[in-house]
Amino acid sequence: MHRCQPPDAVVWPQNVEQVSQLAALCYSQGVPIIPFGTGTGLEGGVCAVQGGVCINLTHMDKILELNLEDFSVVVEPGVTRKALNTRLRDSGLWFPVDPGADASLCGMVATGASGTNAVRYGTMRENVLNLEVVLPGGELLHTAGLGRHFRKSAAGYNLTGLFVGSEGTLGLITAATLRLHPAPEATVVATCAFPSVRAAVDSTVHILQAAVPVARIEFLDDVTMDACNKHSQLNCSVAPTLFLEFHGSEQVLAEQLQRAKEITQDNGAFHFSSAKEAEERGRLWAARHSAWYAVLALRPGCKGYSTDVCVPISRLPEILVQTKEDLKAQGLTGAILGHVGDGNFHCLLLVDPEDPEELHRVKAFSELLGRRALALHGTCTGEHGIGLGKRQLLQEEVGAVGMETMRRLKAMLDPRGLMNPGKVL
Amino acid sequence: MHRCQPPDAVVWPQNVEQVSQLAALCYSQGVPIIPFGTGTGLEGGVCAVQGGVCINLTHMDKILELNLEDFSVVVEPGVTRKALNTRLRDSGLWFPVDPGADASLCGMVATGASGTNAVRYGTMRENVLNLEVVLPGGELLHTAGLGRHFRKSAAGYNLTGLFVGSEGTLGLITAATLRLHPAPEATVVATCAFPSVRAAVDSTVHILQAAVPVARIEFLDDVTMDACNKHSQLNCSVAPTLFLEFHGSEQVLAEQLQRAKEITQDNGAFHFSSAKEAEERGRLWAARHSAWYAVLALRPGCKGYSTDVCVPISRLPEILVQTKEDLKAQGLTGAILGHVGDGNFHCLLLVDPEDPEELHRVKAFSELLGRRALALHGTCTGEHGIGLGKRQLLQEEVGAVGMETMRRLKAMLDPRGLMNPGKVL
Ligand SMILES: Cc1cc2nc3c(=O)[nH]c(=O)nc-3n(C[C@H](O)[C@H](O)[C@H](O)COP(=O)(O)OP(=O)(O)OC[C@H]3O[C@@H](n4cnc5c(N)ncnc54)[C@H](O)[C@@H]3O)c2cc1C
Ligand SMILES: Cc1cc2nc3c(=O)[nH]c(=O)nc-3n(C[C@H](O)[C@H](O)[C@H](O)COP(=O)(O)OP(=O)(O)OC[C@H]3O[C@@H](n4cnc5c(N)ncnc54)[C@H](O)[C@@H]3O)c2cc1C
Repeated sequence: MHRCQPPDAVVWPQNVEQVSQLAALCYSQGVPIIPFGTGTGLEGGVCAVQGGVCINLTHMDKILELNLEDFSVVVEPGVTRKALNTRLRDSGLWFPVDPGADASLCGMVATGASGTNAVRYGTMRENVLNLEVVLPGGELLHTAGLGRHFRKSAAGYNLTGLFVGSEGTLGLITAATLRLHPAPEATVVATCAFPSVRAAVDSTVHILQAAVPVARIEFLDDVTMDACNKHSQLNCSVAPTLFLEFHGSEQVLAEQLQRAKEITQDNGAFHFSSAKEAEERGRLWAARHSAWYAVLALRPGCKGYSTDVCVPISRLPEILVQTKEDLKAQGLTGAILGHVGDGNFHCLLLVDPEDPEELHRVKAFSELLGRRALALHGTCTGEHGIGLGKRQLLQEEVGAVGMETMRRLKAMLDPRGLMNPGKVL
Repeated sequence: MHRCQPPDAVVWPQNVEQVSQLAALCYSQGVPIIPFGTGTGLEGGVCAVQGGVCINLTHMDKILELNLEDFSVVVEPGVTRKALNTRLRDSGLWFPVDPGADASLCGMVATGASGTNAVRYGTMRENVLNLEVVLPGGELLHTAGLGRHFRKSAAGYNLTGLFVGSEGTLGLITAATLRLHPAPEATVVATCAFPSVRAAVDSTVHILQAAVPVARIEFLDDVTMDACNKHSQLNCSVAPTLFLEFHGSEQVLAEQLQRAKEITQDNGAFHFSSAKEAEERGRLWAARHSAWYAVLALRPGCKGYSTDVCVPISRLPEILVQTKEDLKAQGLTGAILGHVGDGNFHCLLLVDPEDPEELHRVKAFSELLGRRALALHGTCTGEHGIGLGKRQLLQEEVGAVGMETMRRLKAMLDPRGLMNPGKVL
C-alpha cells in the first residue's frame, strides 16, 4: 500500500551514545531522522517521505538485564520478541506480546503492538515498565527514571505511556524495560466452527463474561478457513471458526476447556476439537499461523494489505456482516481474521500491484471500514498504528481538540518536525 | 502532614458545561483552579496553596452509560467506587480498583490510584479507556475521541495515559470511561503467619512465579497484627502475615488454595487458615480492613501519615528490615502493611500534631524511606501520588531530563500555571 521511499543514508549505530550523537547532528543540520526496527510495520512507518537519515537499530541487540525474581528484562532495540523468548526458554518466564512477525521489541513499543495473547496478557501499553529514549536533539530521557523497574507508580506524568505508540515521531527508543510473565505450566487449544459470525462472537462474549481466563481467542471467517484448507491440505469446516487457547495447571485447564465447550455448544458450535500435546496443538493452530500466506496464495502475484479496526465487542457481529457485504459490493478478495476477544479484526485484502484501479478500490474499502468502526465507537487501528495512511481517520477519531493536543505534544518534543516526519499527524 | 489551606471560594458545578465556563472564567482572570473529588487524597492534593477556586465535582454523580456486553461504564466525577459497585451488584460485573477510602473514581484517575486487587486486575492506569477533560482554558478534550470505548488502540499519542495520575494539574476530569471485569464466581481467602519478613516475601514471589492467579496478596507486619488483635479482639499470631484472596470457580479455587498452602508452608508458614463463606471471609479480613484505625488507636490523639514506596519485589526483604531499624532508631511508632505482590508497602506513622519535633522526625523518616526506595530502583509513590510533599523526591526519581519533560508538558497544557498550582512539579 505504501510505496517505498528510501532515505538519503542509512546508519547502524552500535550503542546509545552513537544514537545520541547522530540525532544531535541530524537535528542541528535540519535532517529528518527515521528510526528503523525490523521493518515489519504495516503502515509505512519507515518510509522516508522527506528523505533524511534512517537510523537502523538492529546492531544494538543485547539483553542488558534480566531480573527473574522481579519479572522484568531490559532489551536493546535490536532484540526481537522471538530472540527474547529463546533466551527465556528455561527461566520459567516469557514475554507474551506476539505480533505475527518477529518484530523488534522496541519497534513493538513504537507501534503499540499486540497480538493473539493480548486478551489475557495485555498489549505493549500494559507491558512496558520504562524506556530509554534519545530525544530529537540528542538528550537522553529515562521515562520512569534511570534503572527503575517497579510494577507500579504514581510519580508524576506517565512519560512511558507517551512513547508507547509514538511511531518514532517523538524520539528514538534505545532500550525498553519490559514486564515478563510466568510461563504457563500447561497449554490446551481448541477449535470450533459455528453456523454464523454472530454465534462465534456471542460465544466470545459469554466466555469472557464467565471469566474463563482464555489466553487466546481468535476468529477466522469462512474465506480464511477455505484458504487454509487449500494451502495446508487441511480438512476444516468452511465456516466462521474460533481458535482458543488456555494456560494453567492441568486440572484447571480441563475445567476451562469444559466450560468453553459448553458455552460454544450452547451457541451452536459444531466440530469442537481440542489438543494438549505440542504437536497436536501445532496441527490445530496451523491454519491460524499460515493464514496470511494461505490467503495470499488465493491469487498468486497479488500483494496483501491488512485493515486493523477495533470496536466494542458488542458491535462486532454487525461490522463483520457489513464488511462481508462491502467486500462483495466492491468485488474485492478479502479474508477476515482477528483478535476477537479485544474486538480487533483484520481484513486481508488482495490487490494486483499492477492494477491501479483495484488499488484504488482497496484504499476506498479500507477507509470505509475505518469509518464504519468509528461510527460504532471504535478505532481505525487496534494495533498497527497510524503511519502514513490513516492520518485522516485519526482526525475523525480523536476530533479537533484531540488533534490539537497531539500536535502540541509533537511540537513540544520535536519543534523542528524532524523526527519521522509525515507520520501519525 | 499537609496543613489545610482553604481556597478563596468553592463552587459545585452541576454539569460539564458549567465546569468549562468556570475554568474559562478563572483562567482568563488568572485565578488558580483546584479540582476536588472526595478529598481522601493523602498528599495534600486539594490544598489551595495559592488560594483560588476549588471546583467540587461531587454534585455530578451520574452513571452516564453502562455497556455490560462491552465491559465498560462511563461515570461522572462524583461517582465513588462503592456507588459504582453497588449499581453493578446484580450485573455479573464489577470494578476492582479499591483504595482504602471510598474515593471518587475520577479522583482515583487523577491520582493513579490502586489497592489490594492491583496484582490481578491492574491499577487505574490499566483500567481507564477514555476521559472527558476540561482543559485549563475551558476547552473540552475526549482523550480517546468522543464516545469511544474500545479495549485497545494504536491510534496516535496516548492522551488518556497522560491524564491518569496528573493530580489535577493538567485539567479537570469530568467523565471517565472505565473497564469492568466479570465478578468472581466464588472467592476464597487465606491468612498465614511467618517466622520472618523474608519468608513472607519469598512466598509472594514463589506464588507469582507459579502463576497462581492470586487476586490479593497483602502483607501485615507484627506491629500491625498486634494493633489489630487489640483493636478488634482478635487472636492472630503477632508475626509477619500474608492475607491472600483467590477468585474463580469452586474447583479452581480449591487447587489454587492448595498450591498457595504448599508454597507458604515450604517457606515456613504456620497457622494457615482459609475461608469460603462470606461471613468467615469477613472475619479473616477484619484485621486488614481495620488496620488503619487499629494502628491509630495505639496512641490515642495522634494523627497518622502513610508512606507509599514501591520497589522491585526482590528488594522488599531488605527495605522492610531496614525500615524497621530506621523506625527504632528514630523512636517512631510505625506499622507496616502493603500490597506486596506489587512491591508496594505503606508505613503508617503516628504523630502527635502538637509535637513539632516529632512531626519533624516523621518527615525526615519519610524522606529517608523514599530515598531508600529510589536507591533500590523503586519509586517514592506506588499509588498516592506526589502532591505537595514529594516534589523533591520526584526530581531525584526521574532526573533532570525527566523533570524538564514534565515541566514542558505542564507548560504546554497550562501555560499560565493555574491548574492546581504547587502540586507535582
Ligand atoms: C505478517 C505480519 C503479521 C503482523 N501481525 C501483527 C499483529 O498481530 N499485531 C501487531 O501489532 N502488529 C502486527 N504486524 C505489524 C508489525 O509487526 C508491528 O507493527 C511491529 O511492532 C513493528 O516492529 P518493527 O520492529 O518491525 O518496526 P518497524 O517496521 O521497523 O517500524 C515501525 C514504526 O516504529 C518506528 N520504530 C521502530 N523502532 C523504533 C525505535 N527503536 N525507536 C523509535 N521508533 C521506532 C519506526 O520509525 C516506524 O514508524 C504484523 C506484520 C506482519 C508483516
Ligand atoms: C483510609 C485511606 C486509605 C487509602 N488507601 C489507598 C489505597 O489503598 N490506594 C490508593 O491508591 N490510595 C489510597 N488512599 C488515598 C486516596 O483514597 C486516593 O488518592 C484517591 O484516589 C483520592 O480520590 P479523591 O476523589 O478523594 O481525590 P481528592 O482527594 O479529592 O483529590 C486528590 C487529587 O486529585 C485531584 N482530583 C480529584 N478529582 C479530580 C478530577 N475529577 N479531575 C481532576 N483532578 C482531580 C485533586 O485536585 C487532588 O490533586 C487512601 C486514603 C485513605 C484516607
